[in-house]
Amino acid sequence: MSELIRYGVTRRWSDAVVVGGIAYFVEVPDDPTLSAGDQFEQIFQQVDARLAQVGSDKSRLVQVLVYLPFPSDLALFNRMWDEWIPEGHAPSRACTHPTLAAPGYRVELVLTASVL
Amino acid sequence: MSELIRYGVTRRWSDAVVVGGIAYFVEVPDDPTLSAGDQFEQIFQQVDARLAQVGSDKSRLVQVLVYLPFPSDLALFNRMWDEWIPEGHAPSRACTHPTLAAPGYRVELVLTASVL
Amino acid sequence: MSELIRYGVTRRWSDAVVVGGIAYFVEVPDDPTLSAGDQFEQIFQQVDARLAQVGSDKSRLVQVLVYLPFPSDLALFNRMWDEWIPEGHAPSRACTHPTLAAPGYRVELVLTASVL
Repeated sequence: MSELIRYGVTRRWSDAVVVGGIAYFVEVPDDPTLSAGDQFEQIFQQVDARLAQVGSDKSRLVQVLVYLPFPSDLALFNRMWDEWIPEGHAPSRACTHPTLAAPGYRVELVLTASVL
Repeated sequence: MSELIRYGVTRRWSDAVVVGGIAYFVEVPDDPTLSAGDQFEQIFQQVDARLAQVGSDKSRLVQVLVYLPFPSDLALFNRMWDEWIPEGHAPSRACTHPTLAAPGYRVELVLTASVL
Repeated sequence: MSELIRYGVTRRWSDAVVVGGIAYFVEVPDDPTLSAGDQFEQIFQQVDARLAQVGSDKSRLVQVLVYLPFPSDLALFNRMWDEWIPEGHAPSRACTHPTLAAPGYRVELVLTASVL
């Protein structure tokens, strides 16, 4: 329980931090020049890969804060989210429309997942 | 410790997720046509009910992110919050004014509580 | 694991809450009349002090949500952040630009840290 494990550590952030059986991570799409739909597809793939890296999967997501800077993207995001989330395993979720730190990004996700 | 329990699972989100002794949940008022004050009263009742559902109560809130889309609602929200929170048991709290995903809502709360 | 400890409890919030080996806390600069750079320096000192208070330190930060209401402050904030974070120990981090509840503040941080 006491071990703190960092993945993908840079000067500014770690790709993921695991402690106490919970993985904490943040994702933005690798390619912010893509269309909104392609960014959403890309970020779900990134989340799947990150979950695999930390020893979890999308059936064990705990809570997701969804940042969508463009409110008009919400319907499309929800459609793709509903297909991506495995039925019966949806996380707690909040969705807001803040301005993101990097222009071009159509989505940012703050995630926690169980690794137990 | 390893069990992950979901409450009120829908296609898109769960009403609450409990893992490792912590409940993670998000609330918006059931009725976004109410006045700001009535929405705040309603959401506190919803949080009380959710906490009871997961085996906790408002004396065991850990952290609350308060999203208030209308800055002018802050004074009223704080007054009602201060009455609702049991003295000596206030959680860690951050309050910002983002645009929420659904129009009409005067508040959204992202909460963690201890269920131990 | 089951103990919930609150630090600096007021009517409205606690300065920090520790449960299950994780400290949850929120900081804004003590003096919102300072320049952006001085506010950033001040908040990092406050975080260091809070971490010491709860039995942790900046090498054990888990996740930080950075709220910067002025996007033009980001470059300076990142420069100071990079100097403050100990190399090899960066937390998971998300940065957005919401309106904060109190005017004058150039930054607000929502933090989790391991106390194990």
